[in-house]
Amino acid sequence: MAQVLVIYEQPADRAKFDRHYFSTHVPLAKRIPGLQRYEVSRGPITGDPGAGHFHLVATLSFPSMKVLQAALDSPQCKAATDDLKNFADGVRILVFDNETI
Amino acid sequence: MAQVLVIYEQPADRAKFDRHYFSTHVPLAKRIPGLQRYEVSRGPITGDPGAGHFHLVATLSFPSMKVLQAALDSPQCKAATDDLKNFADGVRILVFDNETI
Repeated sequence: MAQVLVIYEQPADRAKFDRHYFSTHVPLAKRIPGLQRYEVSRGPITGDPGAGHFHLVATLSFPSMKVLQAALDSPQCKAATDDLKNFADGVRILVFDNETI
Repeated sequence: MAQVLVIYEQPADRAKFDRHYFSTHVPLAKRIPGLQRYEVSRGPITGDPGAGHFHLVATLSFPSMKVLQAALDSPQCKAATDDLKNFADGVRILVFDNETI
């Protein structure tokens, strides 16, 4: 399953981030064609020393890398990406192709 | 679903990394109690400018954060963690709790 991981750094105002994220950004992102599953982390993100800098991790899953590539080129994805500047202070995006072993 | 994301940086010798990872490390990690799904990325990991540094991403899924916490404290997890030094040049670990929205 092809996945996009969107890792958000701690914003200056977490409540404001969450309001915009769930009321505006998620509905925009859910329009991306081919999106099969949309997950967000809740609660603290822990792990190695850098993990405390992260506020939220979103995992968007697509049935294949081909569908994901088409999704990334879609106007719906552009609309969601353009919205990042409205709430995100720092974001890392990883694209990879997961296979259950 | 509670998840551990293990992000491996590019090793000096990829073929050696892959041999050790799939023949030794995966069997060790699969013994971790409560592990429900084990996924690895195949092919290139792309995304933001830092993504090219990554060789492989493993996603280990557990039914709940409680089960995951117990898994992290298990001797099987210690055995897998102790094995990292045998093949990994750099590793980042993120623990988070995914919820489908």
